[in-house]
Amino acid sequence: MIKINENYQKLQASYLFSNIAKRVNAFQQANPDKSLIKLGIGDVTRALPDACVKAFHLAVDEMAQDTTFRGYGPEQGYDFLREAIAKNDFQARGARVEADEVFVSDGAKCDSGNFQEIFSTDIIVAIPDPVYPVYVDTNVMAGRSGAWNAEQGRYEGLVYLDGNRDNGFIPDLPDRPVDLIYLCFPNNPAGSTATREQLKQWVDYARANKSLILFDAAYEAFVQDETLPRSIYEVEGAREVAIEFRSFSKTAGFTGTRCAYTVVPKECMAYTEAGEPVSVHALWNRRHTTKFNSVSYPVQRAAEAVYSAEGQAQVKELVGYYLNNAKYIREKMEALGYDCIGGVNSPYIWIDSKCDSWEFFDRLLNEAAVVCTPGAGFGKCGEGYIRISAFNSFDKVVEAMERIGCIL
Amino acid sequence: MIKINENYQKLQASYLFSNIAKRVNAFQQANPDKSLIKLGIGDVTRALPDACVKAFHLAVDEMAQDTTFRGYGPEQGYDFLREAIAKNDFQARGARVEADEVFVSDGAKCDSGNFQEIFSTDIIVAIPDPVYPVYVDTNVMAGRSGAWNAEQGRYEGLVYLDGNRDNGFIPDLPDRPVDLIYLCFPNNPAGSTATREQLKQWVDYARANKSLILFDAAYEAFVQDETLPRSIYEVEGAREVAIEFRSFSKTAGFTGTRCAYTVVPKECMAYTEAGEPVSVHALWNRRHTTKFNSVSYPVQRAAEAVYSAEGQAQVKELVGYYLNNAKYIREKMEALGYDCIGGVNSPYIWIDSKCDSWEFFDRLLNEAAVVCTPGAGFGKCGEGYIRISAFNSFDKVVEAMERIGCIL
Repeated sequence: MIKINENYQKLQASYLFSNIAKRVNAFQQANPDKSLIKLGIGDVTRALPDACVKAFHLAVDEMAQDTTFRGYGPEQGYDFLREAIAKNDFQARGARVEADEVFVSDGAKCDSGNFQEIFSTDIIVAIPDPVYPVYVDTNVMAGRSGAWNAEQGRYEGLVYLDGNRDNGFIPDLPDRPVDLIYLCFPNNPAGSTATREQLKQWVDYARANKSLILFDAAYEAFVQDETLPRSIYEVEGAREVAIEFRSFSKTAGFTGTRCAYTVVPKECMAYTEAGEPVSVHALWNRRHTTKFNSVSYPVQRAAEAVYSAEGQAQVKELVGYYLNNAKYIREKMEALGYDCIGGVNSPYIWIDSKCDSWEFFDRLLNEAAVVCTPGAGFGKCGEGYIRISAFNSFDKVVEAMERIGCIL
Repeated sequence: MIKINENYQKLQASYLFSNIAKRVNAFQQANPDKSLIKLGIGDVTRALPDACVKAFHLAVDEMAQDTTFRGYGPEQGYDFLREAIAKNDFQARGARVEADEVFVSDGAKCDSGNFQEIFSTDIIVAIPDPVYPVYVDTNVMAGRSGAWNAEQGRYEGLVYLDGNRDNGFIPDLPDRPVDLIYLCFPNNPAGSTATREQLKQWVDYARANKSLILFDAAYEAFVQDETLPRSIYEVEGAREVAIEFRSFSKTAGFTGTRCAYTVVPKECMAYTEAGEPVSVHALWNRRHTTKFNSVSYPVQRAAEAVYSAEGQAQVKELVGYYLNNAKYIREKMEALGYDCIGGVNSPYIWIDSKCDSWEFFDRLLNEAAVVCTPGAGFGKCGEGYIRISAFNSFDKVVEAMERIGCIL
């Protein structure tokens, strides 16, 4: 008899964004004449940078001729892209990352969801709250949690790192030993950023405890304050204990084009039951080459173009555009009397909703036809907050804030 | 302490194709002047069909304008593609598959590797031998095997379905109950095809034993004999017990472009420990939406174009071209006195090498500068065979067979 992975039975409700999509669809069907403004899922809205478009077309043309056609590429990504990434995103900022430590993939969601596979199911996982749901759900699926505790609103067996007003949504070190630690800065959903000193605490903790940090830096391009780190590898010792996830999605508008990457330094070790060190790079390489077959060649060429002079200027303009939206949203919400975090060095504004967060979500949807994301969807500590995303046109952002101003 | 997934320690050597790549690289470095002909990995060599190229470009242009730009798409794929697939690949052949049973992905390798995740690790897995290594390796990684038995040349705990000369590399039903069954027709690597009656036996077995079949039909486009099934859903009852993997890789030359899909009929059930049925479609949908973020939009448009009248004609020509290569290779090898399977209704020719298969591989590489795939890389039953792939230009195929003719 074919038996299911019983861990799936522990999962609560449907995935946050699917749940939002259902409510939005219901609203649109009931109100076909109302124009909805989406500031919810964190999806970019502006066109691909022109440099990427040009490179994309050129690569499609290569695929159109037998002589320049490319079939299977290296699973880890083409050298041209891995080298551009290592050089521009890390070495140029003084962080040591080699090209062969970069694994190109089709999404940071996929990588941050899959990476846990190479570790034992018998480890203690620490996950911030509020948090991007993928970290929690994929560990529940793998069997690293106990049952859902409805009273607590949390899974048994996971260590939750609380974010709250007091710590500015930058979690404190855990009060018990943990083995695998998820961190995300600039934070999704709370828009908070960590200083070099704050990250250093985590790196030191991981080194002292033989833990591993999975660092999600999908929003690093939004960091404008040059005193803040963009990569965890700007912190001494991080190469021994940290994996970093990056994406072209928010930087260059690749949410529908699909390209991301993961950095796995060769110094990172995980351990056998007997305590023998094993290279995490070797483990991930085995997983990646066995279960993945590289990213579409034209997409890799489009991603490479992000690093051209033209591409860099266009990406800077794009990021600046969304940051201007973020600033506008934050100012308007503050003027309406709402406390905010983020919106600076981050495309997300995290707002104290002063009421149940799904209630506030429904109110913005039904009364203002504006879609946000309810904080409770990101965990227990997100209750009482909503996230507004800056990913839309400035005109839409202005209109959304006008509509919200009328109902609050 | 961060502990590894100890199952990875059981894995043998490196992944077959990486191993081949290493030997080929060593040969090329030692013989920089020799031109190598690759008939190994099963990678297509001819340009994308013109219909796909046109659609690809148009979609890139859409991504270049704010007004037509697309961000995140539905994780399961766009309706335009799911509907085209259901209609053309199944309904047109009398097989019932609905659009919402189609999950578009970036590769059949990924899907056939990932699908096992939704099942218990405590099930018995049956895998053909010889076989595409991904089925075995991913189940070892997940912990469904015991240790590697060096004497047997197999993992403990897996049920191997022997392919051999007697059964024409179409495995017989297992001699003990199994829960998850991998089948692949037209077969990779052996090029064998199964009749409707042969598949019916497996479907009946699965229905009787509450087993599930993972049916890999990546090479269905090569089936020219209209009496042979292209899909397992052409067999009565299969919707209750079979998942089917398909790919645009070999059909339309998408190995470097990346698009595939998996069909999960709503009737398929897996069971809890207590014997309660659970929808496999719902389980996979949860997995797919949590760990995957859809295929690049321009790639989905390129795949859709396969189903246009122009695309269908071009794909037919492509497939015919490779089949003509296959026929040529088979005839030449038979003329040299080698027994062959496949090469008809399949792009692979499976050849009795009359010696150790890595030895034969090395001989073709070092003496003829031709790359094939050693049968032993596909499992114990592949020992004594090699696989030659028809994926190359006809000129190269002719030259390769000339070179081989000189040394054998």
